Amino acid sequence: MSMQRTASVEAVTAAGGAGVAHVMYRVEERMADLVDGYGRLLAGHAQATLSAGGKRLRPLLVCLASGVPVIESDALVRSAVAVELVHAATLVHDDVLDGALMRRGRPTVVAAGGRLLATATGDLLFSRAFAELAGSGSVEAVRALSRAASGLAAGELMQRADAWSTAVSIGRYRERCRLKTAVLFRGACELGALCGAGQARALGRFGEAIGLAFQLLDDILDVTGPPERTGKPRGTDLLDGTVTLPLIIARESDEQLARLDLRSLRTAEQAAAVCDRIIATDALDVARGQALAMVARAKQALPLLPDDQRSALELVADGVVERYS
Amino acid sequence: MSMQRTASVEAVTAAGGAGVAHVMYRVEERMADLVDGYGRLLAGHAQATLSAGGKRLRPLLVCLASGVPVIESDALVRSAVAVELVHAATLVHDDVLDGALMRRGRPTVVAAGGRLLATATGDLLFSRAFAELAGSGSVEAVRALSRAASGLAAGELMQRADAWSTAVSIGRYRERCRLKTAVLFRGACELGALCGAGQARALGRFGEAIGLAFQLLDDILDVTGPPERTGKPRGTDLLDGTVTLPLIIARESDEQLARLDLRSLRTAEQAAAVCDRIIATDALDVARGQALAMVARAKQALPLLPDDQRSALELVADGVVERYS
Repeated sequence: MSMQRTASVEAVTAAGGAGVAHVMYRVEERMADLVDGYGRLLAGHAQATLSAGGKRLRPLLVCLASGVPVIESDALVRSAVAVELVHAATLVHDDVLDGALMRRGRPTVVAAGGRLLATATGDLLFSRAFAELAGSGSVEAVRALSRAASGLAAGELMQRADAWSTAVSIGRYRERCRLKTAVLFRGACELGALCGAGQARALGRFGEAIGLAFQLLDDILDVTGPPERTGKPRGTDLLDGTVTLPLIIARESDEQLARLDLRSLRTAEQAAAVCDRIIATDALDVARGQALAMVARAKQALPLLPDDQRSALELVADGVVERYS
Repeated sequence: MSMQRTASVEAVTAAGGAGVAHVMYRVEERMADLVDGYGRLLAGHAQATLSAGGKRLRPLLVCLASGVPVIESDALVRSAVAVELVHAATLVHDDVLDGALMRRGRPTVVAAGGRLLATATGDLLFSRAFAELAGSGSVEAVRALSRAASGLAAGELMQRADAWSTAVSIGRYRERCRLKTAVLFRGACELGALCGAGQARALGRFGEAIGLAFQLLDDILDVTGPPERTGKPRGTDLLDGTVTLPLIIARESDEQLARLDLRSLRTAEQAAAVCDRIIATDALDVARGQALAMVARAKQALPLLPDDQRSALELVADGVVERYS
């Protein structure tokens, strides 16, 4: 979903001090260079996806996981860029698959250039991510990123495999969210830690937890909208056959939802009506409660860190929750 | 195009001795494990692309570039597998873009599972390639592979940018071939050399030259067929709007071809008729001559190597040419 830079991301960048702000500036600069570097091939196509309109939540995590005050290094900037390039590559491919026309207020690559161009553009962004990271010389970093990237693709495959299925368990839903979203948050924290003071494992767990909460809340927003905020009609997931936590929970108390075959939904109005039925149950409260608890536990489980770093990471975690309020 | 394992590949494996054969066996084994490892997600989908039906020309180059007799190592097997996974990923995505139904005598991933599944499968193969390579611990190897993978994607983008254009120069055509094919041959040789006795630069140049010849001959086969051998109707490139060397050269001596707008071609019969006009010129002889000269120069420019290694690499180069005869 399209979301503007939240107040908290700005707040975190400010709280992290000049170091964080400067690394984030260098990340933007480097992304712009990459777009220019591929000249006519990328320019105009990937700009909508790479441009500064994104939240840059993942690069921010890379930065903060390395430490506050940040020990700025080429490897850190490259790691942050690499994570964002992988994210951008998946967005470009997702837009191909969804036939999405707009992202971040601009035409998507697939809308502007067609499927062939968008698929190749995604592949190029993907390759550049690894090239960017390999330039910094850490094979552990490449390992962390490739693990995350494999997870993202496996998550997409799992979502396809489970599409339209009424038998998706909460456990399976969570595993899908972990793969398609949380592993890249984990990877971002691991990459940051590898450039900084270490604790990659513990920081990676923190990243995974808030990534999972991020996806849960995203799935709640698909039900609640409003479309002006999410940039898409309510119930888009339902029309795609994607069974998410709100529906899984709501089915337990609403027999009509339990019997619902998502394939029978044809229009945005029908999807919105299902969203209203879900809202009428306690499903959203339960799902939201799970996400908030995840974030709270993630904050509590943070390892021993300098106060400034801990505060900044907690602010990011709060920012994930703030998306919903 | 679909091509069976040529006699020469078998010959090279034999000539390389038990070491080469054993590494190639371990490559097959590892590829099979990877398919199994992703269980239901990959199994049945990527098998047609990953299965032993392929030529394995790139893994063979990795193996031979490392030295003959081969110093077998985990890193060497991983490198060979990584190169083949990148190749497989691009085949899966190419099939999505071309809407291809069959490959290596089996349904393509896109035919069996649809576009969404095939795009995600390609992404997964791509990620696994880097994960595989990072497992062996050489950041130089990751750099070489990501450079090659970026080239492949950039080559696809260039092909799209030049589609239907009458203004493609021979220089630009060669650059496209270099990117979309030769860089991975180069990468294979570089990866092998990094696992072995070195000379990555010189062996990389050899790989690039025979990769370029490989693509030139592939483009000639698109004009000559026969379809039973290439697995596709003659003139498939023309119908796709892909301007290749035979047409570029033939245009110089045939005014009707010079005036031809590829967009006007609608049927396989019309494409075959254009192929016949190209064949009537000296374009194929010229193009073939260029490819043969490239291979000859590549063999001459091989660096100082043990005799067995040189002979084996020369056999591979001859195998590329043999495809045409």
